[in-house]
Amino acid sequence: MTHDQNADRESGSQLNPKYDSNGLMSAVVTDDSSGAVLMIAFVNAEALALTQETGFAHFYSRSRQSLWKKGETSGHVLHVSELLIDCDQDALWIKAKPAGPTCHTGVASCFYRKIESGKLERVE
Amino acid sequence: MTHDQNADRESGSQLNPKYDSNGLMSAVVTDDSSGAVLMIAFVNAEALALTQETGFAHFYSRSRQSLWKKGETSGHVLHVSELLIDCDQDALWIKAKPAGPTCHTGVASCFYRKIESGKLERVE
Repeated sequence: MTHDQNADRESGSQLNPKYDSNGLMSAVVTDDSSGAVLMIAFVNAEALALTQETGFAHFYSRSRQSLWKKGETSGHVLHVSELLIDCDQDALWIKAKPAGPTCHTGVASCFYRKIESGKLERVE
Repeated sequence: MTHDQNADRESGSQLNPKYDSNGLMSAVVTDDSSGAVLMIAFVNAEALALTQETGFAHFYSRSRQSLWKKGETSGHVLHVSELLIDCDQDALWIKAKPAGPTCHTGVASCFYRKIESGKLERVE
C-alpha cells in the first residue's frame, strides 16, 4: 500500500473497504433514534454488499463461520438508516431502526452492563 | 465452554472478557456528550486493564502490534466516562470525553463519510 493509495482511501469518494487477513471488518450498530450502541459484530464483503442492497444489516459470524442476517429467525431485524465508514475504511458504523430488542437476551442493547470497579452492573 | 459458563458470562456480575484467538476484542468509542461514534479499534487484556486503571482509553494496534494510549502523541486523549461490555463479553463500549478531534485527519469522528449508492459522501 503506497502513501497515495492510503491518502485516496482517507479523502476520496471511492468505497474501498480494507478487510483484515480474515476478510473482515468491525461493524457497530447504533439506534437511529436513541443513539445507543446496540451491538458490535463483523462484516465481510458479502455481508456489506447485502446490507447495502437490502437495507437490512447482515454480518459474518466468526464462531459459526457463516453469513447471517440479523433477525432472520427472531424477526428483530435492523433497518439501515445510514451507513458510514471510517478514515482508513476498515470499520463500519450502521445507524439503524431496530424492529425489536437487538440482544438475544431480550434487551434493547447488547451493552446492558457497565464495568464498575472491576465488576459488572446492569444499566438496563 | 459449557452452557453454565456462557450463562454466567451473560447474566453474571463478574468481568470475564472473551478475547478472540489473537487475544483481542472490538471496542467502540462514543462521545459522551453528542453520542456520536468516534472510532472503533481493538483492545487486549493489557489495554483494557490500563483503560480501567488510568481512566484514559488504551488500545492494541494490530498493524503496529503494540499497545497504544489514544492521544499519547497528539494530546487528543479520551477521558473515559463509562465502560460497558456486551452480552457475551467480547466487545467493549467506551463512552468518553475527547480532549480534541479523535480522528488523525483532524475531524471529530473517524466516521466522516457515509456510503451512498456505493460512493462516499462527507458528512462533516
